[in-house]
Amino acid sequence: MATGETAVVLLSGGLDSATACAMARDGGYDILTLAFRYGQRHAVELAAAERLARAMGSKRHVVAEIDLTVYGGSALTADIDVPKGRDTAEMADDGVPITYVPARNTIFLAHALALAETGGASDIFIGVNALDYSGYPDCRPAFIKAFQRLANLATKEGVEAMAAGQDGPFSVKAPLIDMTKAEIIRAGQALGVDYGMTWSCYDPQPGPGGMDGVVHCGQCDSCQLRKKGFDEAGATDPTVYAA
Amino acid sequence: MATGETAVVLLSGGLDSATACAMARDGGYDILTLAFRYGQRHAVELAAAERLARAMGSKRHVVAEIDLTVYGGSALTADIDVPKGRDTAEMADDGVPITYVPARNTIFLAHALALAETGGASDIFIGVNALDYSGYPDCRPAFIKAFQRLANLATKEGVEAMAAGQDGPFSVKAPLIDMTKAEIIRAGQALGVDYGMTWSCYDPQPGPGGMDGVVHCGQCDSCQLRKKGFDEAGATDPTVYAA
Repeated sequence: MATGETAVVLLSGGLDSATACAMARDGGYDILTLAFRYGQRHAVELAAAERLARAMGSKRHVVAEIDLTVYGGSALTADIDVPKGRDTAEMADDGVPITYVPARNTIFLAHALALAETGGASDIFIGVNALDYSGYPDCRPAFIKAFQRLANLATKEGVEAMAAGQDGPFSVKAPLIDMTKAEIIRAGQALGVDYGMTWSCYDPQPGPGGMDGVVHCGQCDSCQLRKKGFDEAGATDPTVYAA
Repeated sequence: MATGETAVVLLSGGLDSATACAMARDGGYDILTLAFRYGQRHAVELAAAERLARAMGSKRHVVAEIDLTVYGGSALTADIDVPKGRDTAEMADDGVPITYVPARNTIFLAHALALAETGGASDIFIGVNALDYSGYPDCRPAFIKAFQRLANLATKEGVEAMAAGQDGPFSVKAPLIDMTKAEIIRAGQALGVDYGMTWSCYDPQPGPGGMDGVVHCGQCDSCQLRKKGFDEAGATDPTVYAA
């Protein structure tokens, strides 16, 4: 238990980060949540993040504006079509997907470090997953560990601790990193996560019964992984997909 | 010589980054320059960065919007007075200054990595300096090296190269890191940098003869370091300071 300690949780509004957030809460941390308006084409995930932050008892929900569109190169921030109807084997074969945002996790963790420094937090939770996103280098354990080392070298307390041969104060927690989507869903359900409040779709479609007037497309990579996860978990999927 | 290679240069509009940029140009790189509108109280440095980018022959000057004010904690982004009239010994004694922006270099390098990935650059130049800014942990060689390692782990090419026991493709160059301000100024003058185009002051004052209607205050830490640098370099200081 980390009772009384504070953690920054990167909360995108998706299924993975909502689960990571529930794990931090279950660990006894006071939670500061951080979401980004980064030029993603659809704002519904930001609304989901805000509602999740409230439901999770976040002490402070911060939305940072960072314009990633100036760098280009991703279907999530540029005017490029997102792939549809690929199964997970096809995703794996195709390597780094077009929905990859350059240096995204590096940028997100760097901003989380700023909030941790000013908010008195020593732990940062990120819901990355090395299995379902095997095409993303910045979802791997070696990357997470390298960022943790960087975070400690970037800060006064960390430099002093490491000079004394101790671990630095900053710790980056990626509790989902080795879990399948089905395992993540089962873990989140055990912690009471309402997955109906989470948003995964890269290409929201107008329609009733979803969130803010849109529903999950059901066809993009992220929807495919979500559906497969609920299926394999043997769990009821609360998501409303386009017909 | 790095003829034909591309480098991203973090160009703040200040004296150090202008010198680092001239060094990259002198090294034969094609240059992409990156500045940030990060909630700093004074925009004159952004105008300086844009003019410098043009003068240095930057192939593309990118201004990224990143709101660091949401994290608070710095005199450069929050409504806190900047210190005035301290000499460099006092700055050193006081440790990490109130003008330190939390995780700033981590954030800036993360964004530079995004531009490097999409712009086909493998080298990133940053004008940090470990001597004049000894209170800033994220200006030290160990930090720069740790970021370079992270950058290679964050990218597909890097992961593949490191798996094969090779160095990754990304290199972070901090050519000023061990130089005094006087040495930086002499090196820049030898490369033809016009320091009258650079901006250092944390607290611009209205006045004629400077840049965009303001002049350097002459009293903040950054002005003090600038004046001392020109003095020790035995160079004419083109800066217009408030009377």
